[in-house]
Amino acid sequence: MMVLITYDVNVTTDSGKKRLYRVAKQCKNFGQRVQNSVFECLVDPTQFTELKHRLESIVDPEKDSLRYYYLGSNWKRRVEHYGANEAYDPEGVLIIDANGK
Amino acid sequence: MMVLITYDVNVTTDSGKKRLYRVAKQCKNFGQRVQNSVFECLVDPTQFTELKHRLESIVDPEKDSLRYYYLGSNWKRRVEHYGANEAYDPEGVLIIDANGK
Repeated sequence: MMVLITYDVNVTTDSGKKRLYRVAKQCKNFGQRVQNSVFECLVDPTQFTELKHRLESIVDPEKDSLRYYYLGSNWKRRVEHYGANEAYDPEGVLIIDANGK
Repeated sequence: MMVLITYDVNVTTDSGKKRLYRVAKQCKNFGQRVQNSVFECLVDPTQFTELKHRLESIVDPEKDSLRYYYLGSNWKRRVEHYGANEAYDPEGVLIIDANGK
């Protein structure tokens, strides 16, 4: 399933900056960064439960927020991009030339 | 329809900071800020066309990006929030006490 994760982390303190770094790191493990604080994660339910658990143990719920958007299976037709850095297709075919070309 | 709008604006220059301010201002006119660069906009197709046009005339497509997520009519069950500043319900009933209490 495709889950969009957006976050706001309060970085006015050093511990805030550390939380931001850790949140981004976890999201990178499970998905594709499409904007600075926006990740698209193509995950199965078990992976998502794990990711959610990790993120919620990192953030400070008094100061930071996480939002999850469940985009469903037809997620591609729900997304439109304009401008810099269009993201790659996480379901796209990876073509590897056996001759290394 | 509910459209989620996320944006990244490159603010390394003064003109970038101006673009960021203008993008946020337009989004505020049409929707609800749920995170720093994330807006949920409950708009009809005409309003959305107008908003999209305005935003795309503000950003620098070489440096900035906009993403639109069309969440459909069942958008409420697609969204989950954790942490600070849970947003208000844009379709909720506004109760005004006639006595100003």
